Amino acid sequence: MTTYKNYLKQYLDYVKNNPFTGAPDELYDPANYILQLGGKRVRPLLVLLGYGLTNTDVTKALPLANAVEVFHNFTLMHDDIMDNADVRRGEPTVHVKWNPNIAILSGDLMLVKAYQMLNNLQTDLETKTQITDGFGKMAEEVCVGQQFDMNFETQETVNESDYLAMIEGKTSVLLAFSLEAGGQLGGANKTVTDALYQYGLNIGLAFQVMDDYLDTFGDQASFGKRIGGDILENKKTLLWIEARKRAQPDQLKSLDEWYGKTIDSQEKIDAVTLLFRTLEVDKYAEQMMHQFSTKASNYLDIIRQQYNTELIESLASDLMTRSK
Amino acid sequence: MTTYKNYLKQYLDYVKNNPFTGAPDELYDPANYILQLGGKRVRPLLVLLGYGLTNTDVTKALPLANAVEVFHNFTLMHDDIMDNADVRRGEPTVHVKWNPNIAILSGDLMLVKAYQMLNNLQTDLETKTQITDGFGKMAEEVCVGQQFDMNFETQETVNESDYLAMIEGKTSVLLAFSLEAGGQLGGANKTVTDALYQYGLNIGLAFQVMDDYLDTFGDQASFGKRIGGDILENKKTLLWIEARKRAQPDQLKSLDEWYGKTIDSQEKIDAVTLLFRTLEVDKYAEQMMHQFSTKASNYLDIIRQQYNTELIESLASDLMTRSK
Repeated sequence: MTTYKNYLKQYLDYVKNNPFTGAPDELYDPANYILQLGGKRVRPLLVLLGYGLTNTDVTKALPLANAVEVFHNFTLMHDDIMDNADVRRGEPTVHVKWNPNIAILSGDLMLVKAYQMLNNLQTDLETKTQITDGFGKMAEEVCVGQQFDMNFETQETVNESDYLAMIEGKTSVLLAFSLEAGGQLGGANKTVTDALYQYGLNIGLAFQVMDDYLDTFGDQASFGKRIGGDILENKKTLLWIEARKRAQPDQLKSLDEWYGKTIDSQEKIDAVTLLFRTLEVDKYAEQMMHQFSTKASNYLDIIRQQYNTELIESLASDLMTRSK
Repeated sequence: MTTYKNYLKQYLDYVKNNPFTGAPDELYDPANYILQLGGKRVRPLLVLLGYGLTNTDVTKALPLANAVEVFHNFTLMHDDIMDNADVRRGEPTVHVKWNPNIAILSGDLMLVKAYQMLNNLQTDLETKTQITDGFGKMAEEVCVGQQFDMNFETQETVNESDYLAMIEGKTSVLLAFSLEAGGQLGGANKTVTDALYQYGLNIGLAFQVMDDYLDTFGDQASFGKRIGGDILENKKTLLWIEARKRAQPDQLKSLDEWYGKTIDSQEKIDAVTLLFRTLEVDKYAEQMMHQFSTKASNYLDIIRQQYNTELIESLASDLMTRSK
């Protein structure tokens, strides 16, 4: 039986056999380095899953899958500079291992390379233009999401719609595009490719809200990161936004006081978590996850009317379980 | 009579009427800011001149002209961060007026926007794919040129072929692409579009060598910048590369000593200039300019067999005169 893990193997072989080549090394090496750091490869898998709806052999979709992963890693390379992040997947980030200028330029090259891959797709020109159009819109939204995220750091308040626009841009639109473009390349009709896009978008939003939720209310053993990390970093999450909306004056004062402190203290985590529970923002986040998941399910139903969606569901379910 | 100045006016009107729009402002404003700083607009003019060979009305080529100028300004925005440049055209650079993170992200957006413009070109899909293909190759070479340039700063020696690859990438390939793509969009045949590319490439190389030459041997009144600026900055120019090749041991020792000092001294300028003259690297640069100009002329002859090249020649001649 084909599982999405077969796709993963095919993709990993493809990446291994198709490194970037060129001189000078300082330009090409960082691109190969970040691509080989690993990760779950969710986005190229989504491309192959979208394509696999209509095709048993996904070989033809590998370059598109790679374009998406190269684009994703371009954003990681530049985001790491902007976020001043020293480590990615246990290894030094490009701007640390080399320097920030090299990380800027090598990232630029990766964006150019992703577009070259799109332009070299072996398909009819209409489909190529359509995929490139979706890619451009997606890439712009990713920039928008990152700028919102940077703005939030210095803003005193954040409203929910800006927050949702941020997580949509930073995470969801690329998942959505990956599925949609895979479907388009595979020849699925517009009803299906639109549903693939919306499924990816809503699954992405559900994941992101879950990520906020688990960071505070998750189980330490299975979460991986320290529970309460967002609170310690004074991160403007959905929980924080909703809590400030619901808080009475004294609760708001207390929350703002805790978020005004930059300390590594379990007392801070406990106090803010208790406040969140009192204001029932945990339930609010659960409802919101449920809403996004339901929407995603409805779009999956549309696809299921024409195609077998088992592989897509199995990836989504594994991701949900792994993150919990 | 149509002159290229009519094209310039059309392009400037187009830019004015088609600013980037979107939220958040921090993402879109820097892109509009750098585009409105001015400049000679050589690259969009070259697109229109290439297109104008076969068309009396260049309106249809304005989006392509703009894509090229947007791409050029993306490279300027990122280069200014890498070069730590505070001022561009008398105004603060984006990373100074806003901050480096905004300059990275807004530059990324401009590269995405340039590609969006290409994908929205109103032309047949074959031509669009062809132009996008050339654009991708050009963009990669620009990254290569910038990386070579950064590498040179810390290299003890630079060989001439790397130097030429650097100036080709940093300047010439975009001029070459602009003319070629304009011709392709206008429907010129491959003999002509290839000749347009080669003409642009060689004119660009001639300009760049002239720039090196004039920085040391130019006339202060007309050059604009301080004569000897490259020497003061210990820049690894063609003059310096050739001088080190020709120098006797004592001359090499003297040159390297001067280039080991970071001082603002007329004595340094005079000493190095005299050494350059003694080694006749001024004549070498003149020969090289002549070679590139002759090559450019030969390619222009090919175009002239089919089309009127007066406007192209008049722009090139004005640029040569203005720079002297």
